[in-house]
Amino acid sequence: MEYNKNFNIRNGRNLTMLVDFYELTMANGYLDNNVGEKIAYFDMFFRRVPDGGGYCIMAGVQQLIEYLSSLTFTEDDIEYLRSKNSFSEKFLNYLENFKFTCDVWAIPEGNPVLPNEPLVIVRGPIIQAQFVETMILLTINHQTLIATKANRICRSAEGKPVMEFGSRRAQGYDGAIYGARAAMIGGCSSSACTIAEEMFGIPAAGTMAHSWVQLFPNEYEAFAAWAKTYPDNCTLLIDTYNVLKSGLPNAIKVFDEILKPLGHRPKGVRIDSGDITYLTKKCREMLDAAGYEDVNIVISNSLDEYIIRDVLSQGAKIDAFGVGERLITAKSEPVFGGVYKLVAIEDDNEIIPKIKISENEEKITNPGFKKIYRIFDKNSDKAIADLITLNDENINESKSLELFNPVYTWKRKRVKNFYAKELMVKIFDNGVPVYESPEVMEIRDYAKQEVEKLWPEVLRLENPHTYYVDLSTNLWNLKQNLLHQYTDIFEESDEK
Amino acid sequence: MEYNKNFNIRNGRNLTMLVDFYELTMANGYLDNNVGEKIAYFDMFFRRVPDGGGYCIMAGVQQLIEYLSSLTFTEDDIEYLRSKNSFSEKFLNYLENFKFTCDVWAIPEGNPVLPNEPLVIVRGPIIQAQFVETMILLTINHQTLIATKANRICRSAEGKPVMEFGSRRAQGYDGAIYGARAAMIGGCSSSACTIAEEMFGIPAAGTMAHSWVQLFPNEYEAFAAWAKTYPDNCTLLIDTYNVLKSGLPNAIKVFDEILKPLGHRPKGVRIDSGDITYLTKKCREMLDAAGYEDVNIVISNSLDEYIIRDVLSQGAKIDAFGVGERLITAKSEPVFGGVYKLVAIEDDNEIIPKIKISENEEKITNPGFKKIYRIFDKNSDKAIADLITLNDENINESKSLELFNPVYTWKRKRVKNFYAKELMVKIFDNGVPVYESPEVMEIRDYAKQEVEKLWPEVLRLENPHTYYVDLSTNLWNLKQNLLHQYTDIFEESDEK
Repeated sequence: MEYNKNFNIRNGRNLTMLVDFYELTMANGYLDNNVGEKIAYFDMFFRRVPDGGGYCIMAGVQQLIEYLSSLTFTEDDIEYLRSKNSFSEKFLNYLENFKFTCDVWAIPEGNPVLPNEPLVIVRGPIIQAQFVETMILLTINHQTLIATKANRICRSAEGKPVMEFGSRRAQGYDGAIYGARAAMIGGCSSSACTIAEEMFGIPAAGTMAHSWVQLFPNEYEAFAAWAKTYPDNCTLLIDTYNVLKSGLPNAIKVFDEILKPLGHRPKGVRIDSGDITYLTKKCREMLDAAGYEDVNIVISNSLDEYIIRDVLSQGAKIDAFGVGERLITAKSEPVFGGVYKLVAIEDDNEIIPKIKISENEEKITNPGFKKIYRIFDKNSDKAIADLITLNDENINESKSLELFNPVYTWKRKRVKNFYAKELMVKIFDNGVPVYESPEVMEIRDYAKQEVEKLWPEVLRLENPHTYYVDLSTNLWNLKQNLLHQYTDIFEESDEK
Repeated sequence: MEYNKNFNIRNGRNLTMLVDFYELTMANGYLDNNVGEKIAYFDMFFRRVPDGGGYCIMAGVQQLIEYLSSLTFTEDDIEYLRSKNSFSEKFLNYLENFKFTCDVWAIPEGNPVLPNEPLVIVRGPIIQAQFVETMILLTINHQTLIATKANRICRSAEGKPVMEFGSRRAQGYDGAIYGARAAMIGGCSSSACTIAEEMFGIPAAGTMAHSWVQLFPNEYEAFAAWAKTYPDNCTLLIDTYNVLKSGLPNAIKVFDEILKPLGHRPKGVRIDSGDITYLTKKCREMLDAAGYEDVNIVISNSLDEYIIRDVLSQGAKIDAFGVGERLITAKSEPVFGGVYKLVAIEDDNEIIPKIKISENEEKITNPGFKKIYRIFDKNSDKAIADLITLNDENINESKSLELFNPVYTWKRKRVKNFYAKELMVKIFDNGVPVYESPEVMEIRDYAKQEVEKLWPEVLRLENPHTYYVDLSTNLWNLKQNLLHQYTDIFEESDEK
């Protein structure tokens, strides 16, 4: 077969075609049945926080906007689809002249987000609103997964910098690139992924591999060569042979004999294997004794939030962490289960709510066109709960507000002295992008600020306090009414 | 910030720059120390089969070749690197005129591969051979991970078709696209990922979502509309409300009332939730009773090799499986731990083997420039062992061959009546691609054929028999000699 000669720069892929085939068969079917222009509402939401955490960090909106702004079918795409013999010429002609005209709302990146609340809402002709399902899910699922994992890891590091090191173990090129982006939103301080700095302004960082040390006749000469090339940015990898007997003594020798006479301070040493707690304590003692109290100790080697918490609790002397495969793949739970569900259609300009029922209560959807308020306590500025309402509802901040558990409805709470912030923003108006996306490093700061508005109990890595996501009385009533229409189905299924 | 208006078709990324930043600082350092043109040998290999399996399936060589053939630095890349103030003008000039001149060998895609044998070998100036580390690892790690997982899942399905359905839960766009490619190499029969058919000729397949059913006034009308649009390819999703009381009766009604009068046979029904064993048995009975013995039952819903094996062992009546998130992310073990290690350098045209030592025996590398023979029994055509030799060694098939365990060297076996097949092929000669890559569907057939040459004991999903990867006597001796040079380091580290 022929190789793609433009693999690196122009990959030969049209992401418009990154779509589950059934989106195309359905779109063709909508047109064939004259329902393509029927206005539909879809919610994208998730059902469970990975790793048993208390919240997720929203990410991926910028790429979602770029995808939706660039929807187009090339002549090659049309020819390929024609060759499938599944699509009408009317449909292929529709694709040739495709124009995105939906309204889209999303929760801005960096916000803590919770199960069962819409992260993205799409309103528009069902032929379009259905078509974009795969890429909306793929984009938000991936980046939210990694941002959430990064946030856990950064919390465990207790404010010390966490560097993203995972490109080589990522699941595909975009897994590395957008994974690095999401890791920054979650709180990482830099990434080894060079292209991520070029594309998004994420600080790129890196030192040397073991192969640098192996190439030279001995470790001292390898370190000396590095120090001469990078006198102001000299971090040495000290575990190629033996950290305490060879690596660190050679590093200190180079600091003394090469950097000191030239008037430069070394930056750090890195350890990529062995007993982290023991080695870093010993290294700290030896560095301090040699007058290098300001030289950082950087650690890598299959780290995650559990290992970091563990070594810090044992008093390991670490100044920065490099985290690779367990962050870039969210190894402990590598799937973010976002779904995209029809919640309403319009008939004669009236919104008709739709519900997806299931024997599994968790899988029953919240019907209708909705919005989300985050309720903050005015005194502490801490978030109390999220309240999902129908889109035409407003909250009166001057009155008290009753919140209730949507399942155990006798669990009620009256909130006073609060303010309510609408979480979602409009990102497309009739197909035109209307939202200004912040830079990644700004999103990172925003996420930090918003996470600080959660109670510490919600931040726990394990067994956190459940943050409440409640339904307004109107929405709750609507859902109950729809559910009761299906009573016969639930009854029948009990026969089994 | 400004949105990328070419996101979908021309993504604005140059994969040449998908490189760990330390590759660039090292490259600049090699040049600065006048060692950039020193010839080095790197091995890419892995240490453990994921999920406790018996072997992996090699994948990703086509993309590796495309990456290495397209290496180029744009003006923007150079400007970005200049702005970092870490790189010499000499180095930036080198990148502007970058030309890949390495020799590269790889095991062709579809081959079963084992721990500790090189999957890829790169020989060339260290400044180049080091630079390509990140993308070699990323490419082979990702695709081999997914091909291996797919192979496990397909084995559990006992010859029934497995469709790849995971795009929406993949880790990034390439996670979906190349994941679908790798899934086919592992044995899947089709993919829902449309662009993967367009790019690689992978059969795309798909039916309808729950939203199709929800859009219409009722399930019957939704099915009827579908049947009219796709009379020759009618597979209906029957679990939107209730499979046995609503979905299947409505499907049969549509088969009877719409397809039969028009002379069309229905294709299938799909179930995406509930008790698979119970529901498929009941559905099979009802379909058969209605005269639809040839209508397929397709199952999806968070499947993997364990669930598939379980429901088949209980007698579930399933004709095809749709497998999503647990395949496309290799959920049970989402990291393939391939590494890239310096194994030799050349000095005055002499190959000087290098070893990376470690207190952890598993992490000690096999030194030198090597090749791999797979030894087959001539009678059964089954693979007996892989033998890693130095590159200048040959195997005499007319004599018997002694294999021995490289750790427990008293475990020996004399093999007669065998043939030896060299596993690696040259894919680049002095920077020029010299390997003709087969089409994906051909690789899939090849993988199936090669897996059949493994003994059934190696194919077990759990606790498989260990397939032997042995070293030749020459290679074993070389490794021992190098290790003994470091005896003092191992001794010292025992003090701890």
